[in-house]
Amino acid sequence: MASSHSLLLRRVRPFGRAPGSPVDLLVRDGRIAQIGPDLAAPADTPVEEGGGALLLPGLVESHTHLDKTLWGMDWYRNEVGPQLTDRIENERAFRHASGHDARAQSLALAKAFLALGTTRLRTHVDIDTQAGLRHLEGTLATREALRALQQIQIVAFPQSGLLGRPGTAELLDQALARGADVLGGLDPCAIDGDPVRSLDLLFALAGKHGCPLDIHLHEPGAMGAFSLDLILQRTAALGLQGRVAVSHGFCLGDLAERERDALLARMAKLGVVLVTSASPSRSVPPLIACRQAGVTVCGGNDGIRDTWSPYGNPDMLERAMLIGMRYNLRRDDEIEIALDTVTQSGARGCGFGDYGLEAGCRADLVLVDAQTVAQAVVARPVRRLVVAGGRIVARDGVLETGVAGL
Amino acid sequence: MASSHSLLLRRVRPFGRAPGSPVDLLVRDGRIAQIGPDLAAPADTPVEEGGGALLLPGLVESHTHLDKTLWGMDWYRNEVGPQLTDRIENERAFRHASGHDARAQSLALAKAFLALGTTRLRTHVDIDTQAGLRHLEGTLATREALRALQQIQIVAFPQSGLLGRPGTAELLDQALARGADVLGGLDPCAIDGDPVRSLDLLFALAGKHGCPLDIHLHEPGAMGAFSLDLILQRTAALGLQGRVAVSHGFCLGDLAERERDALLARMAKLGVVLVTSASPSRSVPPLIACRQAGVTVCGGNDGIRDTWSPYGNPDMLERAMLIGMRYNLRRDDEIEIALDTVTQSGARGCGFGDYGLEAGCRADLVLVDAQTVAQAVVARPVRRLVVAGGRIVARDGVLETGVAGL
Repeated sequence: MASSHSLLLRRVRPFGRAPGSPVDLLVRDGRIAQIGPDLAAPADTPVEEGGGALLLPGLVESHTHLDKTLWGMDWYRNEVGPQLTDRIENERAFRHASGHDARAQSLALAKAFLALGTTRLRTHVDIDTQAGLRHLEGTLATREALRALQQIQIVAFPQSGLLGRPGTAELLDQALARGADVLGGLDPCAIDGDPVRSLDLLFALAGKHGCPLDIHLHEPGAMGAFSLDLILQRTAALGLQGRVAVSHGFCLGDLAERERDALLARMAKLGVVLVTSASPSRSVPPLIACRQAGVTVCGGNDGIRDTWSPYGNPDMLERAMLIGMRYNLRRDDEIEIALDTVTQSGARGCGFGDYGLEAGCRADLVLVDAQTVAQAVVARPVRRLVVAGGRIVARDGVLETGVAGL
Repeated sequence: MASSHSLLLRRVRPFGRAPGSPVDLLVRDGRIAQIGPDLAAPADTPVEEGGGALLLPGLVESHTHLDKTLWGMDWYRNEVGPQLTDRIENERAFRHASGHDARAQSLALAKAFLALGTTRLRTHVDIDTQAGLRHLEGTLATREALRALQQIQIVAFPQSGLLGRPGTAELLDQALARGADVLGGLDPCAIDGDPVRSLDLLFALAGKHGCPLDIHLHEPGAMGAFSLDLILQRTAALGLQGRVAVSHGFCLGDLAERERDALLARMAKLGVVLVTSASPSRSVPPLIACRQAGVTVCGGNDGIRDTWSPYGNPDMLERAMLIGMRYNLRRDDEIEIALDTVTQSGARGCGFGDYGLEAGCRADLVLVDAQTVAQAVVARPVRRLVVAGGRIVARDGVLETGVAGL
């Protein structure tokens, strides 16, 4: 008898190619076994009719904050001040007062992502001296609950700064020992006020655990460029090629071309990845120039419906659309680049393996009614079918009963 | 017997106010007759249970191009060059080759707007020496078909420039005589190359027909400020206070504060309205500064799924969300401003009368499941009920049979 993680998907169009001649896709033991026209259905393998729909690999969220979200809760009336520090302090106070449950909230949002086709995601989890490891514990439980279906990378993230609140470094150390995959950082000048000491401590901790780094860099202009230079110096000196991501990197949208391109060339050489939410209200790294320089650019929501901001949506096709709009990508070939930030580049940048629509890849699949990739991004059609690890997890945007109850 | 345009809507919350105590709303003869708790239902008046849902007035689209859209057609593969003139020429050529039907297309998109709660809209209709008045005729037919339900303002718009193609002014003249409501203009420096002659001709034509003006001003920085100054001079000299709109006005996002504020003060004094799509890839007029200066700011999509751009959506709650994101409006009171651009300010700026949720207003109503206005903008919930001129036109986003068949 065939494994329950086997499936024959009939007549689908990977990435919308070959409109005239859809192919079949055979899944065995949770992986793509074969792709081609008119495949024979092995005995006892369930068959799904694709009807010529467009097939994408499972979508990739490269930067979110599952632990912070208020998804599904009563509406949070945002009356927060405009500064970064206002938002950080308001959030800590809100959590303390409300008993916000990082486990239930992260699970609710992760499942919403799954229903809309996201099978891999990287989430930054707040580690601070007030919450301790509570957010990590909640998100670890979510990762465990969804392990067979959704690959979740956890970044231990010092949202309140690394240096300002003594004890934070020790908590990050514990978080990495406890199961966080990646070490996070935050604005070594603007938040920590001592970039060399902050980054030295951060890189030492990453070295101790042999883990990758993902550093939030909101700092604009020359200050951000200065911090980025310090990050690149340490990446080179410590041999961390291909192990460092910079999230946001707003400064790259502010700099003169020559200075910017020099930094991009160093990033490309060191395999430093950029993660962008394509904020429409900030300067953003120039997507096309980054790619032309050889820098991998991944897309993400950042926070979703939390005390920082009510925006964001666990629909990575919508995020691709927002990325396309932010970068004025109108041609079909340009919109494919927007999708790439939440598929291949996202997976490569975060280091998610076995990714794609080829034999041998993990069978993470999304089926939508669209003629082309550009249409899928712009129209964000209902997800007809979502397959994760070879298992059907959602139909028409609704999780299957067994998954909804996880 | 009560009119078929009468209705009692039970237990709704206008703009989400008074969460504890919803009100009833009585519609008679297509207008709001009464709002209050526990209204008596007149005999033969149909009753709809609102269940405490949030009630908004019909949404307002202040800038779109119904005639250009490819909505509902096969996907158009965009391979167009990056310049404004590339897009204008490509579009003219595409239309000529494809036999694009402005009547069918404008009707399809107008109905999609209606299904999602937009009951008033201003649309720019291309007038050029190749298409002649064909787009106007198609859009006039759509306006007529939907007259009882959706108020459509038609702008006669010289998309290919006013001066460059002789005969255009005469066509605009005919378009206004034929039933266009507003005269449109376009970049008097960058497209027409002779701003004084272009604007003199435009204002003379508006004077002849006694119609309002709505001028697309894409010109950036100092060039745009120069054109805007010429527009304001003529508005004052010709006594056109309250009759002129400037669409886009990207230059206002480029200027130094002092120069910008001087222009805004003149605009406010002359009642010159700004219409923005809040483009995420361009400089945009500063929404809050404009409002503080007393300038009315309306929101619109611009084109929707056409040869210019595949983006845009006939959902004005989504446009409000994009406006909120572009202007970094995160607090609930700020997000109410984003909604205002597609409700009250939109109606005021375009001159749509009898608008709002008060007795005497036209009964254009949208009911959604949301706790607050901010949630309605961010979550863009399904439109449970859309009422236009007192008639139920859509439920759960789907047009009623009689309306769908128009």
